[in-house]
Amino acid sequence: MAGAVLEGAEGVLLDISGVLYDSGGDGGGVPIPGSREAVRKIKASGLKLQFCTNETQATRDKFVKKLQHLGFDIAVNEVTAPAPAVCRILKERKLRPHLLVHDDLIPKFADIDKTNPNCVVIGDAADNFSYKNLNDAFQILISLENPVLLSLGRGRYYKETDGLKLDVGAYMKALEYACDIQAEVVGKPAKMFFQSALTEMGIEPHQAIMIGDDIVNDVGGAQQCGMRAVQVRTGKYSRVAEYMAA
Amino acid sequence: MAGAVLEGAEGVLLDISGVLYDSGGDGGGVPIPGSREAVRKIKASGLKLQFCTNETQATRDKFVKKLQHLGFDIAVNEVTAPAPAVCRILKERKLRPHLLVHDDLIPKFADIDKTNPNCVVIGDAADNFSYKNLNDAFQILISLENPVLLSLGRGRYYKETDGLKLDVGAYMKALEYACDIQAEVVGKPAKMFFQSALTEMGIEPHQAIMIGDDIVNDVGGAQQCGMRAVQVRTGKYSRVAEYMAA
Repeated sequence: MAGAVLEGAEGVLLDISGVLYDSGGDGGGVPIPGSREAVRKIKASGLKLQFCTNETQATRDKFVKKLQHLGFDIAVNEVTAPAPAVCRILKERKLRPHLLVHDDLIPKFADIDKTNPNCVVIGDAADNFSYKNLNDAFQILISLENPVLLSLGRGRYYKETDGLKLDVGAYMKALEYACDIQAEVVGKPAKMFFQSALTEMGIEPHQAIMIGDDIVNDVGGAQQCGMRAVQVRTGKYSRVAEYMAA
Repeated sequence: MAGAVLEGAEGVLLDISGVLYDSGGDGGGVPIPGSREAVRKIKASGLKLQFCTNETQATRDKFVKKLQHLGFDIAVNEVTAPAPAVCRILKERKLRPHLLVHDDLIPKFADIDKTNPNCVVIGDAADNFSYKNLNDAFQILISLENPVLLSLGRGRYYKETDGLKLDVGAYMKALEYACDIQAEVVGKPAKMFFQSALTEMGIEPHQAIMIGDDIVNDVGGAQQCGMRAVQVRTGKYSRVAEYMAA
């Protein structure tokens, strides 16, 4: 990051997957060289720091523990993630979700009424994206008079240690098309999501810089919100760049 | 069908699933009341008849045998289906496919070179639409300089005896979004597909009537091709109508 980029900045929002580490493998992922030091330096500089992730393969607690284990200086209250945000929405709008999410995320919805569902919540369900499970979600949506699909992000794919993996956005599109509806995205690039991270930090958009590897969800979303943004050349960026050069 | 609709008609194109029968269940499906008689009457009337289906869960041979077993007067050469059409395209364009299709369709591609794939063919793969299989197809597409996705239809869903099921179109959309590409659709509503059925019958578009249960793929596709079209109120039509009235 050049000094000019930081001019007038009070805080930094950091994406996690593809910026701090590449997920996957037995150990749960591999830190990207220099990223642990970068987090320490940002904190030491006096800049405020909030991690802003669309990660929905685990609860925030479990996710943060994994990152701590990988050597990152990170705490649960420093992480803005979609699952707590969607739980607030479900309660406010009295929505009873059918969940199509990763097993590890299910405990997050323990105190939410899920009987007789009147909406579908879709997250990065990975292997839970079976034909049967997607069809179950579809059948619920198509049977509703006003189908509500809440999607924890709209990412196309992400990078794991063994290659690129389809993200929730692809499956969101499948359900949107099958039911002829538009999903409501909770998470990046939704404006409300970035704003909740800024509120957490107590700063205004023009005082913040978002750093991520996704040109649409990180960079585009933050800019739409009035923030500056930097795209790193790690994570999915590097992999696509490799393909382009091949 | 009112007599006026048939005025000047030389031939009829009949959709199969949702028009002649509802697929699924132990016996492979249930004929829709009156449909066997309707096929017999059309043939007895002297009108030409071609069955025009996006069915890709089985080879034409196997599919026709099932329909004969259900009591339909139908022969293999009377059926226009996407798999033979896509095989012609693959050969003409020297494409080597990675297949994401139903197991029963795989023998159709026996004489096609599938080494070192430079395209993906997607059909109604049903339970083969696992996360792993969709991800494998995605990884091949994203690694290609010019990704080619050939889709055997673009249907949203179809009706089986135990409910509505997601069709190939939903998964086509998932891959289109993930890779930021446009699939090439082989099958209804592609103009070329209807034209090959007309060529088989030796008649012109204005002499033909398409009968189907899908407003986009059957009715819209046929009309774009210069044919008249009738939407039946069976198949997916009836199920959606039920929901609307509920």
